[in-house]
Amino acid sequence: MTRISVGDEVILYLDAKRTYKVKVEESKQFHTHRGFIELGDLVDKPYGMVVISSLGVSFYALKPLIRDRVLKTDRRTQVLYPKDIGYILFQLGLGSGCRVLEAGTGSGALTMALAESVRPEGRVITYEIVERHMKTARGNIERSGLMHYVDMRLGDVTEGIPEEDLDAVVLDMATPWLVVPHAWEALAGSGVFLSFSPTIEQVMKTAEALRSHPFIEIGTVELLLRNITVAPDKTRPQTVMIGHSGYLTTARKVLELMD
Amino acid sequence: MTRISVGDEVILYLDAKRTYKVKVEESKQFHTHRGFIELGDLVDKPYGMVVISSLGVSFYALKPLIRDRVLKTDRRTQVLYPKDIGYILFQLGLGSGCRVLEAGTGSGALTMALAESVRPEGRVITYEIVERHMKTARGNIERSGLMHYVDMRLGDVTEGIPEEDLDAVVLDMATPWLVVPHAWEALAGSGVFLSFSPTIEQVMKTAEALRSHPFIEIGTVELLLRNITVAPDKTRPQTVMIGHSGYLTTARKVLELMD
Amino acid sequence: MTRISVGDEVILYLDAKRTYKVKVEESKQFHTHRGFIELGDLVDKPYGMVVISSLGVSFYALKPLIRDRVLKTDRRTQVLYPKDIGYILFQLGLGSGCRVLEAGTGSGALTMALAESVRPEGRVITYEIVERHMKTARGNIERSGLMHYVDMRLGDVTEGIPEEDLDAVVLDMATPWLVVPHAWEALAGSGVFLSFSPTIEQVMKTAEALRSHPFIEIGTVELLLRNITVAPDKTRPQTVMIGHSGYLTTARKVLELMD
Amino acid sequence: MTRISVGDEVILYLDAKRTYKVKVEESKQFHTHRGFIELGDLVDKPYGMVVISSLGVSFYALKPLIRDRVLKTDRRTQVLYPKDIGYILFQLGLGSGCRVLEAGTGSGALTMALAESVRPEGRVITYEIVERHMKTARGNIERSGLMHYVDMRLGDVTEGIPEEDLDAVVLDMATPWLVVPHAWEALAGSGVFLSFSPTIEQVMKTAEALRSHPFIEIGTVELLLRNITVAPDKTRPQTVMIGHSGYLTTARKVLELMD
Repeated sequence: MTRISVGDEVILYLDAKRTYKVKVEESKQFHTHRGFIELGDLVDKPYGMVVISSLGVSFYALKPLIRDRVLKTDRRTQVLYPKDIGYILFQLGLGSGCRVLEAGTGSGALTMALAESVRPEGRVITYEIVERHMKTARGNIERSGLMHYVDMRLGDVTEGIPEEDLDAVVLDMATPWLVVPHAWEALAGSGVFLSFSPTIEQVMKTAEALRSHPFIEIGTVELLLRNITVAPDKTRPQTVMIGHSGYLTTARKVLELMD
Repeated sequence: MTRISVGDEVILYLDAKRTYKVKVEESKQFHTHRGFIELGDLVDKPYGMVVISSLGVSFYALKPLIRDRVLKTDRRTQVLYPKDIGYILFQLGLGSGCRVLEAGTGSGALTMALAESVRPEGRVITYEIVERHMKTARGNIERSGLMHYVDMRLGDVTEGIPEEDLDAVVLDMATPWLVVPHAWEALAGSGVFLSFSPTIEQVMKTAEALRSHPFIEIGTVELLLRNITVAPDKTRPQTVMIGHSGYLTTARKVLELMD
Repeated sequence: MTRISVGDEVILYLDAKRTYKVKVEESKQFHTHRGFIELGDLVDKPYGMVVISSLGVSFYALKPLIRDRVLKTDRRTQVLYPKDIGYILFQLGLGSGCRVLEAGTGSGALTMALAESVRPEGRVITYEIVERHMKTARGNIERSGLMHYVDMRLGDVTEGIPEEDLDAVVLDMATPWLVVPHAWEALAGSGVFLSFSPTIEQVMKTAEALRSHPFIEIGTVELLLRNITVAPDKTRPQTVMIGHSGYLTTARKVLELMD
Repeated sequence: MTRISVGDEVILYLDAKRTYKVKVEESKQFHTHRGFIELGDLVDKPYGMVVISSLGVSFYALKPLIRDRVLKTDRRTQVLYPKDIGYILFQLGLGSGCRVLEAGTGSGALTMALAESVRPEGRVITYEIVERHMKTARGNIERSGLMHYVDMRLGDVTEGIPEEDLDAVVLDMATPWLVVPHAWEALAGSGVFLSFSPTIEQVMKTAEALRSHPFIEIGTVELLLRNITVAPDKTRPQTVMIGHSGYLTTARKVLELMD
């Protein structure tokens, strides 16, 4: 059974709205408005256990999953939803050993999910033009323990991509159509291009750029997620939902187009 | 650059509706209604290239991704859609090294996606009660090269799960609520339970079972995917869509419930 | 051209969020935080014109539509959305001369829409069990000028419906299944039953009750409405939407079921 | 109780997929592959009754609603769905006495629904440029008994609209943006404009035209309808749904724009 060690990050869960990510250290306390928790007491305990604060309030000690880290990410930049991230990972066809390029890095949420998908043998190269975002993302990724699989670069992929033979390129940026020619150059034959864009004008320009290069299987989708309340005599989709985050446009590189 | 080798599986792509998965062998021909292709000619060529059939028709040679394999899977059993698979993989929090249990195996589509997520250091244990399905799935998984990461078992998880300390349990079967107690036993603390069910009655029973065991973060969602046609003066969601495949119910094991 | 008269209700529109319904009277002022408007000045003016407040702020004078009245309805009770009301009106097959029964009245929002659909020759009979709601609804309906087509009754339709030969029965109440036998008695042959319910358990019970009486064309739908932002380079569905209001279950009375 | 008379149109309902609209005449038989029905026998019978064919097969005799007529409309032209028609009727704010202009007539499905909404005192003026469509629509509308409330005109509203002081203008045609200036001229102050368009490019052009004229409350929505199967242990949204029919763009005329 996996037990908690010094240096591990642990989620302290009070309820669905109040969860706290902490780093386990000996002789350190974590203070909440419901009392403090002796972090050293967590050492050698199993995940999923109940821990009691100094005020007698119970918390669960959970092992952070990538989706927990995404939710906990600093949200100063545009954020992808789990519905989109799951679809992106599957469409990109990632697995251990893949090399994938991302732009822009943003908060690093997708970067961490990509790194988890390609580790231990693969690599994420992630570009960001705003230095402040890159700094934030670096902190998030370092805390997740995934930095070993990530190359962070400050730069603008609309001006070119020096990498070659990539398995996938994924874009979450304002002008993805400007990157299409460079993405084609940087991808391996049969590699996957994917762009996330909130507006349909971005999608139109990106699709047009893709059609004018040797790409096939060009397609655009959007995903809607509904949360369902399930309880006796109260089962129903929830009243308020996210109606739109962005469109996902995918394509696959070929070396030349058929006549 | 990755080049095609003898023994590789390759997708021959004629158009979006006509793709063929072939195994590359020297001195073998693959016959289509548009002429045959000399498979030996593919050796040492790059993925993404155009190959010409004996009748002068062009095909693209693509590297199969897991999503290609899922689409190509023998569909005699209930099938999960990419929208659901992507979400499942992300919610389960899988990465290299994870141990995940699946029931039932069905055609092996999800099994392959799970194996790709946990390799090289993890493992998928997959249960199926119908021997004929298991045989079909075995063929699919073997052809994908992922069998090394999969344990296939003929058995009924409603009667118990012998495994322990699992990172995740994922169910795509008729009576998931009967498996909830066994899933709790088999999961590691903080491990993830996920069930896919087409009907709301299945969801109601599963949610009730989850609520009567030490599970937290119990939730149900459904995902809707819309394909968007993007072309000058023709941009619009497509007329016909899949309106429902199934509900996804997730939960997380804790060792005991708070008072 | 229709011009504004004394006694008319007029919508004063400042912007999408700030509209005011006023009754036109000579020598009366309507005060807003943007100055007051002399209501007598509106007399004999055309709808759609700009009126200027004492502080020089412009308002539009609009003719209230039923949808404006629905939005302006006192919302202390559960409220139907325009997407649902439009569908209800069309499914009920209403037109001038139809007699339709509604329960419960709630705020009178649907009552007004029904009355507008059946006037001048038809009639809405509306039941409510909460006297306070009936009083609120009466005020709303009177202000709309539609009371002439409405009979308001304080009573509980789960105990029986004295009316006969109705063209339609529409229910927006907690236990519609208890009304099904009475609705069958009260409807004319070929008449339409419709029930609006937020939860799936209500729908299940109502559908079961319908199946055990001579009803055909029993069906349930839900409607999702997405607001689309349309502006240069910003065109996209809006981020937040109403994910669920309720299910709409319809059926049609026959005199006896086929063998 | 309303009873069937000679000259009435009646729906003969065998099952959800097989319904037949017939005109009741003495001494006439209606032949189906399940035997014939003596139409004279329907006279003086109540709607909702079971009638037996010469082969002993049961049919229900139903009173046609506008929604039945819409479904039975000759569908050689683009067709609106009930979800869209209900919303259109409600947004237009129609009631007895309203004057509404429609273009193009198409099969007359929406024309009939509009006529039912504005009768007995209102009027639908409907324009169509294809003579063949107008002829089909004329037959549909005449059979519905609503022709008394409809003016059919062969003409192109992109070249101008001679009518004035209309309560509403509703467009279901390829180039609605070309009609926007004429619609503004033809509408009464505070009147409603509505356009139904399948593509987002049509919506963009129409919204731009509306913004450059004195229109307020400019908005675009789309409606999704899900059919739900409700049966013990089988309750779920149906697998296949209509993912898109068209966008609905509405606006309201004012006499001049605020500074």
